[in-house]
Amino acid sequence: MKAKIHITLKNGVLDPQGKAVGHALASLGFAGVKDVRQGKFIELDLAETDKAKARDAAEQMCKQLLANTVIENYTIDLVD
Amino acid sequence: MKAKIHITLKNGVLDPQGKAVGHALASLGFAGVKDVRQGKFIELDLAETDKAKARDAAEQMCKQLLANTVIENYTIDLVD
Repeated sequence: MKAKIHITLKNGVLDPQGKAVGHALASLGFAGVKDVRQGKFIELDLAETDKAKARDAAEQMCKQLLANTVIENYTIDLVD
Repeated sequence: MKAKIHITLKNGVLDPQGKAVGHALASLGFAGVKDVRQGKFIELDLAETDKAKARDAAEQMCKQLLANTVIENYTIDLVD
């Protein structure tokens, strides 16, 4: 089972990487980009086949390692 | 209109960041993680309201700046 995890900065947390991308796009001539936020996308290939257990495991991984829950949100999507 | 862009390494391209995350998960006691791939997730807030034009613009942004198309794939999802 695959877990697709999105880790994004919480609203209100400054995103310098996103700002840099926004400025770079503007300097390339792309007008009309109001905001850019950059996050991480992690694909896990899990041996677990039970959906509930896989979600629990992925949740623990996010809390313990993948996301900094003080400033980041995470979402988990499971795909067979 | 928002564009959600996923940038992932192509299959076969070595992903040292993903490997490092995999090892860290293993050392934390998470068994059964067969593979980890890490990519980028970029949210663009576009002024454009026409879906086709917004997709074209996002595609150009990916090709010119956001993705390295030699080693990376990108997908674009538009959300109103």
